[in-house]
Amino acid sequence: MKYLENASITSVKGFKASGISCGIKANDRKDLALIVSDKTVTAAGVYTRNIVKGHSLQLTMERMKNQEVDAVILNSGCANACVGDKGKESAVNVTKAAAELLGVKEENVIIGSTGVIGYALPEEKMIAGVKNAYDALSEKGGHDAELAVMTTDTVPKEVAVEVEIGGKTVTIAGMAKGSGMIHPNMGTMISIITTDVNISKKHLNKAIKKVTEQTFNRVSVDGDTSVCDMCIILANGNAENELIEHSWEDYRTFVEGLTAVCDGLARMLAKDGEGATKLLEVVVKNAWSQEDAYTIACAVAKSPLCKTAFFGEDANWGRILTAAGYSGAAFDPERVDIFIGDLTVCANGAALPFDEDAALEILKKDEVVVTIDLKDGTYRDRMWTCDFSYDYVKINGSYRT
Amino acid sequence: MKYLENASITSVKGFKASGISCGIKANDRKDLALIVSDKTVTAAGVYTRNIVKGHSLQLTMERMKNQEVDAVILNSGCANACVGDKGKESAVNVTKAAAELLGVKEENVIIGSTGVIGYALPEEKMIAGVKNAYDALSEKGGHDAELAVMTTDTVPKEVAVEVEIGGKTVTIAGMAKGSGMIHPNMGTMISIITTDVNISKKHLNKAIKKVTEQTFNRVSVDGDTSVCDMCIILANGNAENELIEHSWEDYRTFVEGLTAVCDGLARMLAKDGEGATKLLEVVVKNAWSQEDAYTIACAVAKSPLCKTAFFGEDANWGRILTAAGYSGAAFDPERVDIFIGDLTVCANGAALPFDEDAALEILKKDEVVVTIDLKDGTYRDRMWTCDFSYDYVKINGSYRT
Repeated sequence: MKYLENASITSVKGFKASGISCGIKANDRKDLALIVSDKTVTAAGVYTRNIVKGHSLQLTMERMKNQEVDAVILNSGCANACVGDKGKESAVNVTKAAAELLGVKEENVIIGSTGVIGYALPEEKMIAGVKNAYDALSEKGGHDAELAVMTTDTVPKEVAVEVEIGGKTVTIAGMAKGSGMIHPNMGTMISIITTDVNISKKHLNKAIKKVTEQTFNRVSVDGDTSVCDMCIILANGNAENELIEHSWEDYRTFVEGLTAVCDGLARMLAKDGEGATKLLEVVVKNAWSQEDAYTIACAVAKSPLCKTAFFGEDANWGRILTAAGYSGAAFDPERVDIFIGDLTVCANGAALPFDEDAALEILKKDEVVVTIDLKDGTYRDRMWTCDFSYDYVKINGSYRT
Repeated sequence: MKYLENASITSVKGFKASGISCGIKANDRKDLALIVSDKTVTAAGVYTRNIVKGHSLQLTMERMKNQEVDAVILNSGCANACVGDKGKESAVNVTKAAAELLGVKEENVIIGSTGVIGYALPEEKMIAGVKNAYDALSEKGGHDAELAVMTTDTVPKEVAVEVEIGGKTVTIAGMAKGSGMIHPNMGTMISIITTDVNISKKHLNKAIKKVTEQTFNRVSVDGDTSVCDMCIILANGNAENELIEHSWEDYRTFVEGLTAVCDGLARMLAKDGEGATKLLEVVVKNAWSQEDAYTIACAVAKSPLCKTAFFGEDANWGRILTAAGYSGAAFDPERVDIFIGDLTVCANGAALPFDEDAALEILKKDEVVVTIDLKDGTYRDRMWTCDFSYDYVKINGSYRT
């Protein structure tokens, strides 16, 4: 597998993209992205499990049923959620404008909106914006598309890899936005993945579900799960590998490549969590069941007390064990070992003297791994999260205004 | 029902208490409390559901099986949790010292410890402290006992009421400590309730379980549930009312009085949440089931995004609806009305224009009620919580050190 430099979703041949400002956000910041394929692609998606769903997302979910897409419109600055009937109408009208310009079926144009809830999509600005975005389409426009969906993100998140499948080079590229309101099952994140792999609808669907489960669904910034979130993969088949529908080998190689892309994006999401000063990886091993491993990793990754302790670079393992204890998972507290980096800070559920300076050295780094060894079984899971800082409060105390 | 002034657990005749400094905490701050009854009382308790439990708590739970207590020792500054076998030994030795001084059975002395996890109880200091606390016992010592259990609490929490039961005046008084790591099922809170009611063990048990469910278990500060937490009620029978074991009327009156005490303490806990600037009451009404009502109230009360918005005095109802949506509860998002105070900010799941200045007026107050009307059924629940401020991060970024 090879990681590509200057990665963007237009690293994959056959896709054009653009990112422009249409006036939703102040100060001419980019807020509208258009992603277009030169032919109808096979698509698959994963969506928020929040039962409140934005109007743009609802339309996209409807249109994704046949798994065929020609273009994707994304906007930031307005979630197009909870505004009543006009929310759906606006989404339809904006996609219609794009379909007419592109000469494609309206049902093959999907839309994702992210931003504040409860404000109507500025339909006219968006339609004018779609025209400008169409004019700006470029084979190098992937990065601009990413810039246009960022909200509180501080860095763009793009990864691309190449894998060999049946003697052909397959490229997989992804972009993601998301910083706060991120939790398993699609937080406030939108991710678009492009690839030239030739794959059946069924297998593309299976692959994106499996990979998001292991990657995006293992990121927690604040435990909140948003109403607008989706990960869409678009496969144009240009790599001309034999259609992936029977070969386990080819499917696995593709999944590995896709995992590398989503894994990279997921880590970037956690590291760029609102106000984050460091990336935390919470590993639970030797659990009695997969669910127990996941439940504990999740409780620790969500705990405000653990996350503020990491911000304070305080090796407060008592809070980690406490979070495991209230998670609801089954385990024997008197068997648990806890490690910060490779330093043992708790053995068999009890304190043991450790070198506080060594702990501080580890905690000062911008990536910290916490390992909880339950010594109860063979299952393992892990979550990525970030610390909880003053800036998280600052950013979220005044987001709407 | 009458609320008593200068409330403390010694507002009930027959109880003495003291609170002294034994050197666990720095700067001679009070850290050890002793509460003693002039006769063996009927007792009942509710304990953390965290599967990790402190050593003092484990001993207390064992000793509470027969529901008979002569004295309670409480300490702050050290949780006596996760230190291995010596944790239990220390708890036994400290209670033994008190039993000898008081001339009571060791099994009738219980102990609660709160503070940092992973440090051994300073046994010698504690035993010397118990002697000093014994010398300081007083019929007016309830308030000192409260002061001695406070950790990050900024205000003492004490409530006492009088109710009439069968022509007799019954007094019920309670103290509580707790500020962070508070969540349903006993967060980092310790509460002791004294009463002179004459009641059967079975009914006292039933009453404390029922009342904590409606009061302490409806408080969430940060969603973390600690390992040391308990609420113990001690009933000495001095009121000489007819033993409550059959009369529904008497039982109900007692439960109402106990609810008033615990309700008052629970609101104080939420309001004094670490770094809190305001008390939030999240009310869910007209839910399809009790569980749905609770699940939604809980999700909103725990959401860092909702809590930071309240800190910022931002009427960001989208985050409230979002939290309801991911809570897992069943409801129709397109039927939900949301109120901040008495101001409607969302109707039928959609934005509606509201007076932002009026919203700000409401949000600026130090107590704010948020109501979520699901219009799906008849069930109702509510949670108390507080906002999430810079100070929460500050307090918890450096608690251990």
